[in-house]
Amino acid sequence: MMKRDVANGDFDTVGLSDDGKKLVILDQTQLPGKVEFLELDELMEIRQAIYLLKVRGAPAIGVAAAIAVYVLANKLMENGLEQEEPFMQALKMHAGVIRSARPTAVNLQWAVDRMLKRAELCEGLGVDGIVMELKREALLIRDQDIEVCRRLGENGLELLEPGQGILTHCNAGRLATVRYGTATAPIYLGQEKGYGFKVYADETRPLLQGARLTAFELQNAGVDVTLICDNMAATVMKEGKVQAVITGCDRVALNGDAANKIGTLGVAILAKHFDIPFYIAAPTSSIDFSIPKGSGIKIEERPGSEIREMWYEQPMAPEGVQTYNPSFDVTDNSLISGIITEYGVIRPPYNKTMRDLRKTIKAEEEQSKKARGKNV
Amino acid sequence: MMKRDVANGDFDTVGLSDDGKKLVILDQTQLPGKVEFLELDELMEIRQAIYLLKVRGAPAIGVAAAIAVYVLANKLMENGLEQEEPFMQALKMHAGVIRSARPTAVNLQWAVDRMLKRAELCEGLGVDGIVMELKREALLIRDQDIEVCRRLGENGLELLEPGQGILTHCNAGRLATVRYGTATAPIYLGQEKGYGFKVYADETRPLLQGARLTAFELQNAGVDVTLICDNMAATVMKEGKVQAVITGCDRVALNGDAANKIGTLGVAILAKHFDIPFYIAAPTSSIDFSIPKGSGIKIEERPGSEIREMWYEQPMAPEGVQTYNPSFDVTDNSLISGIITEYGVIRPPYNKTMRDLRKTIKAEEEQSKKARGKNV
Repeated sequence: MMKRDVANGDFDTVGLSDDGKKLVILDQTQLPGKVEFLELDELMEIRQAIYLLKVRGAPAIGVAAAIAVYVLANKLMENGLEQEEPFMQALKMHAGVIRSARPTAVNLQWAVDRMLKRAELCEGLGVDGIVMELKREALLIRDQDIEVCRRLGENGLELLEPGQGILTHCNAGRLATVRYGTATAPIYLGQEKGYGFKVYADETRPLLQGARLTAFELQNAGVDVTLICDNMAATVMKEGKVQAVITGCDRVALNGDAANKIGTLGVAILAKHFDIPFYIAAPTSSIDFSIPKGSGIKIEERPGSEIREMWYEQPMAPEGVQTYNPSFDVTDNSLISGIITEYGVIRPPYNKTMRDLRKTIKAEEEQSKKARGKNV
Repeated sequence: MMKRDVANGDFDTVGLSDDGKKLVILDQTQLPGKVEFLELDELMEIRQAIYLLKVRGAPAIGVAAAIAVYVLANKLMENGLEQEEPFMQALKMHAGVIRSARPTAVNLQWAVDRMLKRAELCEGLGVDGIVMELKREALLIRDQDIEVCRRLGENGLELLEPGQGILTHCNAGRLATVRYGTATAPIYLGQEKGYGFKVYADETRPLLQGARLTAFELQNAGVDVTLICDNMAATVMKEGKVQAVITGCDRVALNGDAANKIGTLGVAILAKHFDIPFYIAAPTSSIDFSIPKGSGIKIEERPGSEIREMWYEQPMAPEGVQTYNPSFDVTDNSLISGIITEYGVIRPPYNKTMRDLRKTIKAEEEQSKKARGKNV
C-alpha cells in the first residue's frame, strides 16, 4: 500500500497504485501550492512527468523508472501481447523512451537497465511470468531505496543529539526518495524518537528547492523547521543556532570530494569557520569510485533566466544582464567532517576509508548475487 | 544641471530640477523595469517617496531630504509667506514631517537638522535670504556627497589592478548616493580609466538589491557585470574569478566591526577562506565612534513574507512556514582587510587606526567650521 497522507508527512513520493496497474507520483512541480498524486500508465505521459521534473531526486527517479517499466509491461500484456518475442521488442522500445527522458540522470539509466536485464533473465517464463518478475523487481528497487535511506538515517542519527540545530541545503529529502530522504533521514528518525531538532532550511536559489520542498515536507511531518535565505546561513551559525550541517550530494569522488547543489561549498566553508561539523548524506549509489577527485566532476551550467526571471512577476534584474548559473559545486574533502552512508559514517582520511567502503560494498554485492542466483 | 542619462549610466540619483523648484529623484521602486524621474514639491508626496523607498541608500536619502527642505521653503515663500516668523514656523513643521518618514535613517535626521540649523543661523536675512542660503546648503550637501564618494573611489582604486574580478553584495552603488556610490566608486573610476574590471554582483535575497539595482546601474554604465545568486559566490571565488571583494556598510563600530546587508558576513568568510582581500567602503559618516564593537549594533529583523512571498507569483514556500529574516549582519573586524574611506584606507589594527581617523576628521571639521564662520 502506497502511503499518501502528505498533510501529516506520512507519504511515499513514488509508488504503485493499489490495483497494481499504475505508476503513482506526487507532482512536485505543483508544491507547495497544491498536493496532487498523478496516476500514470501511458508511455508519453510518464516520460513527460520525468522530463518536466514532476518526479525529481536521483533515487526517486530511479524508483519511478523501475515501476514505469513494470506498469508498461503489464499494459502491453493486458493489451494482448502474449508472445514473448514481440512483447520483449515492445518493452525495450518503451524502456528506451523512458530512459531518454533525462539523459544525465544516472539512476534513471541504472533502473531501466536493471529492469530490462531482469526481463531478459526471465525469458522462457512466458509473458505473464516476466511481468510478475518485473513487478517483484520494481518493488524490490523501491524497498531497497527505503531500506538504504533508513539505514543511512540511523547512521546519521548517531552523530546528533536531541535538541540540536541542524542546517540543510536544497532538498535531499523524502521528496527526492521514496521515504525518509537522505540528508533528512536522520531528522525524520530523530523526530520519531522525540529528539526535537530545530532545522534551518536554506531556500536554495535559483530554483528554491529548500523553500518549496524541504520546508514543505519537514513542516508537514511536524518538524520544527525555519526557512532562511541562503545568505543568512552565516548569521544563524554565528548566533549559535546550528550544531550540525547535513546536505545531500549528487556525486562523491574517490577522495571524498562531493558535488552537490550550488551553494553547498559555501555552507561547508562557513561551517568550518564556525567549527560546526559538516556532513554529507550519500547512499553508496552516489559514490563514483571511478573519479579520483572532485575536479573531475563536470558541472552543469543552466540558463540565466532562472536567475533573472523564473518565479517572478516583475523583472528581477535588468534585461539581458550577464549571468553565471552553475547548478552544482564541488566541496573539497577537507571541508567534510563525515560522509553518511547506509554502511556507516566514512571519516577522513577518505583516500583510505573510501577504499575500505568499496570493499565492503563489493563483498555485499557478491553475497546478494549468490542469494539472488538461487531464486531464479 | 542634474544628469539624467540613465541608459548610459550618466545620471544623478537625486537632484534639483533645472528651474530650481523641485526635488528630482530616480524612482528606484520601478527599477529595473522602468526608468522614471519624479519631480516633487508637495510635502506629503515627498514624505511618501522617502517612506516607500523610491529614494533609498543612506547618502541619497540625506541629500533628498536636504533638497526637499529647500524646495518646501521656496514654495512657502512663493505662496506668500514673507514674514520670517511664520515662515520659520511653517518650515519647521514641514521639516518634521520629512524627518519622520523613516525614523531609523540616520542621514535623514542629520540632513534635515543641518538644513534647519542653517535657516536659524540666517534669521534676519529675510525670507528670500534664508531661502537662498537653504538652496546653497542643500546643493553643498549634494556636492559633498559627490566629493566624498569620488575621494573614496580614488582611495579604493589604489587597491585594485586593471582586469581584476571584483565581487560586491547588495547595492552600495550610484543609486544609493548622488553619483559614484561607495562600494562602486572605485569601479566607476576604474571604468573611466579603462581598467576593464569584471564585476560579480550577488543578487542579495530577499529584496534583490544586487539584481535590481547594482546589476542595473553597472550594466548601464558599460561595466562588465555578471549577476549571480548569493550562494554562487563561493564558486566564483574558487574558480579564481574574484581578486577583491568590496561591499558597502550601514554602520562601522570603533573596532572596525561592520554592519551591512545580510549576507555580507558570509561573503567575508568565503573571501578569507580563499585568501581574497575583503574591503568595506565606508564614508566616515557611517562610522559610529560611539559604539565600541559590532555586537552593540542592533539588527533589524524584517517580516518573513519577504522570504515566503515577495516578488513571486506562485507561493515560494509552504503557507505559514517559520522564517528568520535578519536584514543585516555584522562582519567581524578580523575578516576585514581594509576600510575604504574618503580620508584613505584604514587597516588593522583598527583599535589604533580608527582613533587616528577620528582625529583627522575632527581636525578637518574644525578647519571647515572656521572657514564657514567667515562666510556667514
